Parts: sequence; C-alpha cells; structure tokens
Amino acid sequence: MEAYDEFIQRVKDIHRLGALQGHLGWDQEVLMPTKGAASRGEMMAWLAGKRHEQLTDGRMGELLGLLESMTLDIDQAANVREMRRSYDQAICLPKAFVESFAQARSEALVAWQSAREASDFEAFKPALTNLIDLTKQKIELLGVSSTPYDVLLDEYEVGMTVEDYDPLFAGLRERLVPLLQAITQAQETSDEPVLPTDVVFAVEAQKAFCEAVSNHMGFDFEAGRMDASTHPFSAGLWPGDTRFTTRFDEKDPFSCLYAVMHETGHALYEQGLDHDHRYTPRGAAVSLGVHESQSRFWENQIGRTPAFWKVVLPWFRSAFPDAPEVDEHTLNRLANRVEKGFIRVEADEVTYNLHVMLRYEIEKQLFNGDLEVDDLPTAWNTMFKAWFDVEVSEDRLGCLQDIHWSMGAFGYFPTYTLGNLYAAQLLEAMAADLGDIDELVASGNWEPMLTWLRPRIHERGSQVSPAQLIEDATGSPPSPEPFLRYVERKYGELYQL
Amino acid sequence: MEAYDEFIQRVKDIHRLGALQGHLGWDQEVLMPTKGAASRGEMMAWLAGKRHEQLTDGRMGELLGLLESMTLDIDQAANVREMRRSYDQAICLPKAFVESFAQARSEALVAWQSAREASDFEAFKPALTNLIDLTKQKIELLGVSSTPYDVLLDEYEVGMTVEDYDPLFAGLRERLVPLLQAITQAQETSDEPVLPTDVVFAVEAQKAFCEAVSNHMGFDFEAGRMDASTHPFSAGLWPGDTRFTTRFDEKDPFSCLYAVMHETGHALYEQGLDHDHRYTPRGAAVSLGVHESQSRFWENQIGRTPAFWKVVLPWFRSAFPDAPEVDEHTLNRLANRVEKGFIRVEADEVTYNLHVMLRYEIEKQLFNGDLEVDDLPTAWNTMFKAWFDVEVSEDRLGCLQDIHWSMGAFGYFPTYTLGNLYAAQLLEAMAADLGDIDELVASGNWEPMLTWLRPRIHERGSQVSPAQLIEDATGSPPSPEPFLRYVERKYGELYQL
Repeated sequence: MEAYDEFIQRVKDIHRLGALQGHLGWDQEVLMPTKGAASRGEMMAWLAGKRHEQLTDGRMGELLGLLESMTLDIDQAANVREMRRSYDQAICLPKAFVESFAQARSEALVAWQSAREASDFEAFKPALTNLIDLTKQKIELLGVSSTPYDVLLDEYEVGMTVEDYDPLFAGLRERLVPLLQAITQAQETSDEPVLPTDVVFAVEAQKAFCEAVSNHMGFDFEAGRMDASTHPFSAGLWPGDTRFTTRFDEKDPFSCLYAVMHETGHALYEQGLDHDHRYTPRGAAVSLGVHESQSRFWENQIGRTPAFWKVVLPWFRSAFPDAPEVDEHTLNRLANRVEKGFIRVEADEVTYNLHVMLRYEIEKQLFNGDLEVDDLPTAWNTMFKAWFDVEVSEDRLGCLQDIHWSMGAFGYFPTYTLGNLYAAQLLEAMAADLGDIDELVASGNWEPMLTWLRPRIHERGSQVSPAQLIEDATGSPPSPEPFLRYVERKYGELYQL
Repeated sequence: MEAYDEFIQRVKDIHRLGALQGHLGWDQEVLMPTKGAASRGEMMAWLAGKRHEQLTDGRMGELLGLLESMTLDIDQAANVREMRRSYDQAICLPKAFVESFAQARSEALVAWQSAREASDFEAFKPALTNLIDLTKQKIELLGVSSTPYDVLLDEYEVGMTVEDYDPLFAGLRERLVPLLQAITQAQETSDEPVLPTDVVFAVEAQKAFCEAVSNHMGFDFEAGRMDASTHPFSAGLWPGDTRFTTRFDEKDPFSCLYAVMHETGHALYEQGLDHDHRYTPRGAAVSLGVHESQSRFWENQIGRTPAFWKVVLPWFRSAFPDAPEVDEHTLNRLANRVEKGFIRVEADEVTYNLHVMLRYEIEKQLFNGDLEVDDLPTAWNTMFKAWFDVEVSEDRLGCLQDIHWSMGAFGYFPTYTLGNLYAAQLLEAMAADLGDIDELVASGNWEPMLTWLRPRIHERGSQVSPAQLIEDATGSPPSPEPFLRYVERKYGELYQL
C-alpha cells in the first residue's frame, strides 16, 4: 500500500495546515490584540494558500485516481472519498482567490466585532459586500448544477439542497407555529417565573459553577480549556487540547450555563474522536449537522429538564447564595421560557428553528434572488416582524447578531436545524437502549449517555456519511418526526396544553 | 532583481513557519492543557522539519550563491548574510535530526516544569540527558573548528567563543567579587529595609500597577498582551501582536514588577522592529545579547533608581493601600538589595553576572570537559558554595531553576552578561545625547529614551552585526568598562562605600 501511505502523508500535511488555521482562528477571537488584525489576516491568507497548493498538487489527483481503483478498508475508503470531494472543489479555485477569501474573512471578523458593538450596519457593509461578492465568484468557479445557493448548502452538509430544505422547513413551520401560538395563549393566563433583577451572579461563581457542570458532562479539563469570547464557540484544535468559550452576564446565569453546555457538547465530540486517525478526515467530525446534534443534545435535552436541575440545584445554591431559594421546577421553567426574543442563540426550542429559517430565507434571496446588501437590514426586520410580531429596534439585535456572515459562512445556518432533528432522534434511540433518560439524568450518573454516544457518533468520525451515521446509530434514516414529538410533548407538559 | 525577489519569498515562507513555532511555543507555556503535550511536541517537530526542508532546498543554495556575486543594498545584504549563515548550518543537519530535536525540546519542557515543581532532578534527568546527547550530536554534525562549546556559543551570539568569554568573565569577576565583599561588609553595620511579611499584595492590584508601568515605558497594549506563566518571557510573535508574561507573588510585588519591566524591555524592541521587513532577518532582532540589553536597560538602569520610584510612588500607594508608607528611597533600596540569593532572575546587578558565569562554567564542562549529567547537581552546588558561600538545599533553587536547558538552549546564558554590558554602554551614550538620565526619568517623561533607542537599535533589526550596531549607537566598540563604572558608582552610592 505504498500509494496509500504517500497519500496519507499528504493528507496529514494538509490537515496540519488546517489545524494551524484553527489555532490562529481561536486565538484571534479569544486573545489577539486589535492591532494584530492586519498581520493575522495576512497569515491566515498565507496558510490558506499553502493548504490549497498542497491540496491541488497534481500528485494528489494521481493518487486519488490510483486509490479509487484499489480495494480499501472502510477507513481508507472514507479518507479517499472525503479528499476526492475536497480536491474536486479545490481545483476549481485559483490559489490567489483562496488567499483573498481568507484575508477578507479575517478582516470582516474585525469589522463585524466593532460594528456589532456599535450596532452600526454601515460599518460592516463594505466587508460584508466584499465577502458576498467573493462568495458569488466562488459559486461560479465551483459551477452551479441546480441553484447557486445549493452550492453553499452542500458545502456545510453534503447533499443537502434547497429542494431538501424547503419542504423540511415548511413541514416544521406547519407544526411549530401553532405550538408557539398555543404557548403564547397559555402564557397570558399563567404565572411565568421571572429572574430577580437585583441579584448579581458574580462572574467567578458562574465560571466555577459552569466548569463543574461541564466536567460532570464528561469534559476533560486536562485535555482542554474554557475561556471567554464575544461569541461562544468550540474548537477541536489538537488531539489532547480541545477548547471552548462562553460569555458572562452578571444579571443572567442561564446565558453562560447554556452556552457552556452547548459548547461542551461540541467539545465532547472533538475529545471523543479517534486520535489514531488524527489529521485525516476519518479522524474528524463528519458534518456540522451532526456536530450541532451533540451540542443541542446536552444543552436542551439534558440541560433544560427538571431532572438536570434536580442534580445541579445544590451546586447552583452554593455558587449563588444570594439568589432566591427556588426549586428545580422553577429553575427549569426559567430555562425553558418561550419568548419571541431577538437572539437566536438564546431562543427556546420552539422559536429557535424559526430564527434559522429566517436566515435561510435571507441567504436564499441573497444568492438565488435579488436581495442587495443595502436592503438586508430592512428585509431582516420585515420578516422578523411578520414571523415574530416584534419590531427590531437596532441591527445588533437583528442582522448583526451572528458571527457567521463575517466568516463568509453562508449556507451554514440550516445545519443548526438538522442538529436539532438529529439530537431528538438520538435521544429516542438512546432511551430505547438505556431506559428513561430523565431518570438517568436525575440519578446524577450521566456517564452512560456519553458512553452511548462515543462509539456510535464520536469515534466514527467521517467513516460514513452523516445520514448513514444517524441511521446506524438510531436504526432509521434522519427524520423530523422525533423532534416534533419531543418538542410537542415537552412544551405541552410545561404549559399544560 | 528577479533572483532577490525569489529569494525573499522563500525567506518569508521560512520565517512564517518560524513565527508559527513561536506562536505555538508561547501557547504551550501560557495556555496549553497538560494532555496537549504529546500532539504539541509532534506538531513542533513537524514545523521544524518543514522549516528545515525549505531552508535546505537546493534552490536556496543557488540563490545565495547568485546573490553573493551581485551588488545589494545594505538591507538586502543583511538578509543574504544571515540566510547564508542559517543555510550553511542547516545543510549539516538531517531533517530527521531537526525533527527529533524539536520533539525532545517540547517533551523536556513538560518534564522540567513538573520536576522543578517537585524539586526532583531525577525526574528531569532522562529528558535532559537526551537533549545533551542530541546537542553533542549537533555539534559534531556542524563541525568543530575550535572547542565543541564554541559551536553552541556562536549560535546565540555570532562570533563569540570561549576565548572571548573567558577573559571577559575573569575581568568582570576581578572587580565584582571585591565589590560584593565590600557590600556584604557594609551590610553588617547598616540598617537594611525589609518588606513587611504580613501585607498581601493582591494579584489584581499588582497586575494593574505593572500594566501602568509597562504602558508608561511605551508598550502598546493594543499591539500586545501581558499574561501569566511559570517563567516570565517575551515573544515577538506577529507584527502588531507582541506578548510577554510575568508571575505573581502576593508577598512580594517587586518580583512581578521587575519581571514586567524586563519583559517590556524585550517587547519594546519587538514592537519597534521595522515591520516593512517582516518575516526576514532584516526585520528581526539582531542577537540575544542586544535583546537582553533592552530588557536590562529598563529593568535595572531605569527601574531600580530613586528617580523611577519618585514617579511611580503614587501609583504604588494607590494600588497597595495596606502597604506601609515608605518613601522612594526605601523602595529603591528594597529593589536594589544585594543578597547572595539562589535565583538568577531575582539577583541584584552585582551578583547577577556571577550566576551567569556559574552556568557558563557548568556548560563548558558539560561540552568541553567531562562533566556527566549525573554529577550536574553536585557540580552546581559545589561551585555555588565556593562562589556565594551558601549551601543549595534543593535543586529547585539550584540547577532546576532555569527553563533554558529544558529548551536545549546550551550556550545561551552568556548573552545575558553581554546584555548587561551593552545596556550600560547605551546608557552612557544616551546620557551624552539627552543629558542626565536620572533627571529625565524623575521628570516622568520617559518618551525621549524610547525615541532614542528606536532608530539606533530597534528599527535597524539585523542590518549590521551586534558589535557594529552597538558601535554605531554609542561611538565605541562593545566594552565592559561602562558596566563596571555604572555598577561601582551605583552600589558605591547605595552602600556609601
């Protein structure tokens, strides 16, 4: 297998460059001083160029051709399959284009951070326009076989197109909108608990409390870190060194807690990958949708339950002795409060997917229709008013809230909904194996859940396609039904619908 | 100048890989979780291998030969000169050797950190032995023309050998030892101020106080950061992003303050390099000796003076309201207290160079004589007893105290003494231009000092050799006399000798 050995050396070199990009990207968001932005952008462009150069090397094409005619084991075949996909895309793009795109991303990230703080869309517009123009060029270079937006969708979840998402989203809307209406109605007559506004939840106490939760979920702090950043995120980085971030609000401990549970979900996936396959696709997460299933599973299906609050209530009380003495049911209702809020990452499970669909519709118009960047805030705010019946008063609460567009990540958002669907499907399958999950969570022994996920999801990396992985783990192909069952039951109980 | 353009592209690629090594090295000491060590070591080895591959590329040799026969400007000539030196060394070393060395360094660093904490030399010995063996191999590969240790000395300060250092150190010892004896005698009859042991200097307050001092020295915190690490250090990292570290001791605010002033001195050099020449030798610091002159200048010649304390006294008082009310003279005497202490980095200016010479003698024996690693602690402790008349009770206070050997940096220490000498020479020249430096420091306007250093040292990078740079800046070739004048005058006044 000389050809395969040569191939895998090249694959590892390419992925090491990618890991360096990942590390510098983490650093850029967590630590980098402002004046480091220009040289960081230049360095990111350089790394992207080098990576592209190695990926598009003629010998890589030869080796792929050679290996595709040989008998390979399942892991080898996965590496060849994934590298073929990357190679075929990469050879469509000139190196100079790849470098410009990386530099534009790095610059846009800086512009977005200050524009968001100032809620000033105009300050972000030039960088965003540039990224959208470059993305349109990329679509043309890659070649459109169906719609332009499909080219982007496929990048983040292989095989998914507007033709898949449109009916999926329509079906979800059909059941989520009536559910939301029923909840809103129920809220009018019920007493909703509220968080007292005069209690300070000290940052240090939140940090310790959240680290304890993350640790109890199974995150190994000797093989990773938790830091603070504007936008919480998780980064696999290196074998033995997985990092995630959160943010702190002294008035609201839930914001930090659920960011931590969400990012820990991602980070557990990264810590659980098979490091014997490091720096190859086989050793990497299979897709964003599956990644998101891991974060949403822990954040919502474990974290937003009375069972969870029963276990962590003593930790919560000792971390925040000044907080009013509330029981686990009140805390759970606070954590599950349905609100037509502005911010996606803080949305409850009913409205969350509506936030995603709004971004999907905007992106579809940007790339398949004729929405101009100038009109983006108005389009956003109009749609938000129509769907949520709320006026967006400033762009910080609207189209400037998410980091994704500043990273040129158009087509990314729909994978969040896939994650929600996969998570619910995994929960059902897990319950079939382990028994009632609420009881398990309430027992305080959470290990069996992680142990169930490890061989079925984490350790398999990109061995098979996302859909196949979900089917192997749950016995059925991906479907929205488990999610709809889950959300209707959960909120039905919460609001006695 | 097609050849030069091609050459400089290659030079930049090589230096970008070096900058990545620098960034991961910074991260390893400041942030990396323990279980990240194995993959970090592997990654450092990979980067070292790639860098070596590019440096030793046949085309680099051709280009150097071509350019050496052409007329170049002073900056181009500097790049060719420095790359020739790196190239000629690199082609003597096989890539596999370079990778092993990088991996061994990374592993030894981890071993040293825990061995130092436990004061357990045996725990560090295998890694140290491995590094010394590899270093001996390296000496052989590079080729010995005078003594083996000279090969190492030359690496850290070009052109310096045992023949240069032996008489230099002997001359220094001849005047420093009597000075130390005179001070010790004077101390017997004088009242030495002591720091109260019951005051807590809170870490947050130390941090704010030290940042204020660093900022006042001219460090741009928008183009850099200050963090905490076991061993304070400074890293140029990227244009616009220079980082240094310090450590905190709640009983002793001086430890942090002088670490910060020292590292800020290094960091000001890095921030002041000519970034138009980034990723080339011309845009990089010229030598460790000159680097150390910048740190020692600010730490000692500015920081350990009554003039300095006069300016920062109000900041000190407001940062530490519980500290006893002492005046600038008492603080200055505390900061300049001469003690036969164990730790080099905390030593006063009289004993400091003796600490360096001890390490120099040990290293000379390790590589030119027949000292075995097994006998290293005994050799250290015996020499320390002979020179300082103090018993070393544990290796943490002796041969385990410094990070350098764990990084395979043998031959590095003598550059610290060069730094002390250069710093004193620069101070004399600066005073000739700007007038009395104590008066200037006391005025609170420190900018003229940095403005004086910028074009003479920082911006010139590696344009000329270290000795030439010092001569250009001061009007005389490097000499120990200014240092001896400085130290004899300063301590003469402090102890009324």
